[in-house]
Amino acid sequence: MQEHLVIIGGGAAGAKAAAKARKQDTDLKISLYDKNYYISYSACGLTYYIENIIDDYHRLLARSSEKFKEENIDIYTKHEVINILPNEHKIIVKNIENNTEFQVEYTKLLIATGTRAFIPKLDRSNFKNVFILRTIDDGIAIKNQILTSKKAVIIGAGFIGIEAAEAFYNRGLEVIIIEASSQILSSFDKDIAFQVQEYLEKEKSIKIITNDRVKKLISDNNEVKQIETNSGKIIDADTLLLAVGVKPNSELAESAGIQLGKTKAIKVNERMQTNIEDIYAAGDCVEQTNIITQKSTWIPLGSTSNKQGRIAALNITGKNAKFKGVLGTLALKVFNYAITKTGLSEKEAEENKYNYEISTITLKDRAGYYPGVENITIKLMADKLTKKLLGAQIIGKGDADKRINILAAALTANMTVDELLDVDLSYTPAYSTTIDPVLIAARILQKKIKNI
Amino acid sequence: MQEHLVIIGGGAAGAKAAAKARKQDTDLKISLYDKNYYISYSACGLTYYIENIIDDYHRLLARSSEKFKEENIDIYTKHEVINILPNEHKIIVKNIENNTEFQVEYTKLLIATGTRAFIPKLDRSNFKNVFILRTIDDGIAIKNQILTSKKAVIIGAGFIGIEAAEAFYNRGLEVIIIEASSQILSSFDKDIAFQVQEYLEKEKSIKIITNDRVKKLISDNNEVKQIETNSGKIIDADTLLLAVGVKPNSELAESAGIQLGKTKAIKVNERMQTNIEDIYAAGDCVEQTNIITQKSTWIPLGSTSNKQGRIAALNITGKNAKFKGVLGTLALKVFNYAITKTGLSEKEAEENKYNYEISTITLKDRAGYYPGVENITIKLMADKLTKKLLGAQIIGKGDADKRINILAAALTANMTVDELLDVDLSYTPAYSTTIDPVLIAARILQKKIKNI
Repeated sequence: MQEHLVIIGGGAAGAKAAAKARKQDTDLKISLYDKNYYISYSACGLTYYIENIIDDYHRLLARSSEKFKEENIDIYTKHEVINILPNEHKIIVKNIENNTEFQVEYTKLLIATGTRAFIPKLDRSNFKNVFILRTIDDGIAIKNQILTSKKAVIIGAGFIGIEAAEAFYNRGLEVIIIEASSQILSSFDKDIAFQVQEYLEKEKSIKIITNDRVKKLISDNNEVKQIETNSGKIIDADTLLLAVGVKPNSELAESAGIQLGKTKAIKVNERMQTNIEDIYAAGDCVEQTNIITQKSTWIPLGSTSNKQGRIAALNITGKNAKFKGVLGTLALKVFNYAITKTGLSEKEAEENKYNYEISTITLKDRAGYYPGVENITIKLMADKLTKKLLGAQIIGKGDADKRINILAAALTANMTVDELLDVDLSYTPAYSTTIDPVLIAARILQKKIKNI
Repeated sequence: MQEHLVIIGGGAAGAKAAAKARKQDTDLKISLYDKNYYISYSACGLTYYIENIIDDYHRLLARSSEKFKEENIDIYTKHEVINILPNEHKIIVKNIENNTEFQVEYTKLLIATGTRAFIPKLDRSNFKNVFILRTIDDGIAIKNQILTSKKAVIIGAGFIGIEAAEAFYNRGLEVIIIEASSQILSSFDKDIAFQVQEYLEKEKSIKIITNDRVKKLISDNNEVKQIETNSGKIIDADTLLLAVGVKPNSELAESAGIQLGKTKAIKVNERMQTNIEDIYAAGDCVEQTNIITQKSTWIPLGSTSNKQGRIAALNITGKNAKFKGVLGTLALKVFNYAITKTGLSEKEAEENKYNYEISTITLKDRAGYYPGVENITIKLMADKLTKKLLGAQIIGKGDADKRINILAAALTANMTVDELLDVDLSYTPAYSTTIDPVLIAARILQKKIKNI
């Protein structure tokens, strides 16, 4: 019998795995099932489509159906996998369009079901102007909506909420964000998140309400007109975006007896294997190991998904590849402001009971006389005893994103502050100060630690 | 007796050392002698001044005389140190303005005499339109000259030659570069240097003549009018810039019995001490240890000078600080093209008899659909046996400079290609592709090595 790799989910991990498996093994039968119509697209680019930075959503497609066909990969969209039968090496698939069900046998199965939007207790299907932003269809619907919209309210000040705020603002809408917690961007520390908030409020007049929640939607003729919050505010809105976060699509796996981690995402080993033979999982639906703490974490990111898809495919096709873990390195561009992070935040260092020291400093990103010079704020953290680096957050109008990856490399190498200071970084006035801001931050941190 | 730190040279290393020593020790008497009028300026910014990106050269001054005065550091400009008497702990200084000589006693001496232009066998003092570019005075003279100049010839296609070419071109001059060797930018590999050359020739119409030398200057009334080359070319020119390289100012040290290295720069240990007690040296006049080969090298760069000045000052004032060595990480921006390097080039790997493998690939620097996307070419090299990274060169119109420093960190950490692939780099469509180009280059290199 021909070997058959079945992949559930055509997002970053699933699509990458299909392509990589084909490269490794030209004889393998490969089938990919996805309940949506579009697969293998850049979900991170949806807000650019709404903002009109990209006019055609087809440009977000990483790999076209034709490309998959050329590579002899069978794609079944609008097909939902509703059950996994591990003992029989079978899945049960529902064709969403004609509502029929059928079984498919697999030799190896890869679960790459990704995430779904966490939706607050509001039945959004009742309203035609309430949206989430996960798929291309969501993007199309929102882009259509804002043609006539004047005032958008976004629930949730995470990455999607903040990026959508930029898109709406640049399309001429008035924008209000309502965030339940006391700060925006919850994976960042409060002092850093507050700088970003100040930028959005003062330089872009985006209104941000923290410590408040939606209590009630006031509607008329299936359209939300106003939002009443817990604190009693009544806010007009003609577009409402729910962006309160995502959760892993792990229920299908769980119901088949596949072990989940404590984060409720699927538990896999370094080779992306679940606890059940011949079943792998990769991408946003699995939990990862944090490289710093060596504990389980769940940080769904496109870069991680792509890597895991590749590693799963290599192992499925007989190679031995390992995924070591994540630092949660991330970058976000909002207007001309970069927001980046790698490793632990102060909050996370506290939770993990590190005895840490911090330096936070705002510096020029290039020679003061060079045109375009801007500030960046670097928050750098190390263990007081071992001097090992723990994490960094870099934000600002200047080149923050190019610095965070230096620290990602340093963290992966388990460097101390002293070792970081030995790194020979490039200098030219157009790109950096004589001593790169990262090293200046490290000098200050080193000094603080030594003076204990 | 009060301790007296005497510093010879007010460039990056000397000025930094003075400031740092003052921070460490408020009682120390600090004197700095420099034969030039301007000290503590960004020599790397001189071409920006010529180009008029910066209108006033005072903006290049990192630390003003007033600032030094405030910090109780005695600055003697237009004072040349002509002799060091180690046994007597004295130097002999000549006041250039009134041509008098005097002696100064030191407790500790720091030699930070930098480099000087290597000048071909042409007596440039005979001609009023032949220049070198080392000091602010040189910059002022050139900027004045090109007000009426139409055609510049630059001898030497190193960093200064290439940067000056941009400045002249953007000021409306026709530019021709004559380079004696077979390629521009000699520290880069030929294939990489050739890409840069092609860019300059095709997109900026800068003429570059390699494998040729100046044979004769044809002049009239103390002005060079034409240049005759070895190959017989006669080239018109009304401005001639000599940029054939620099050499360390180490003769003063050598004549005092201070040991030079095989590179003819001053030999120092990790604490920046020369072989003679109480005499330190730092900056462009000293040789460094190459972190990859652990051999002596001489790569004069402003970033290194600044670090060494700081380390010398820490040791002079009783701390224990070490300079571990260099990767020669460098970045150059020419027009909108970035030229960067860290670690060994292929040429250097060959000279050092490494058994190396290379991947060279041209990739997009961010999501293909994101505005401003540009290509970068990455040449990545590792040892075939140990898989240890050896060096990288990254060039292009895209964000090359932000990637080279990731590799500088990886090289400092002695990472293998496999370990580099474990680094969790950030991803957002505006700044990167899902898998950063650096990691794609590493994947290709890993594959090439494994298939041996």
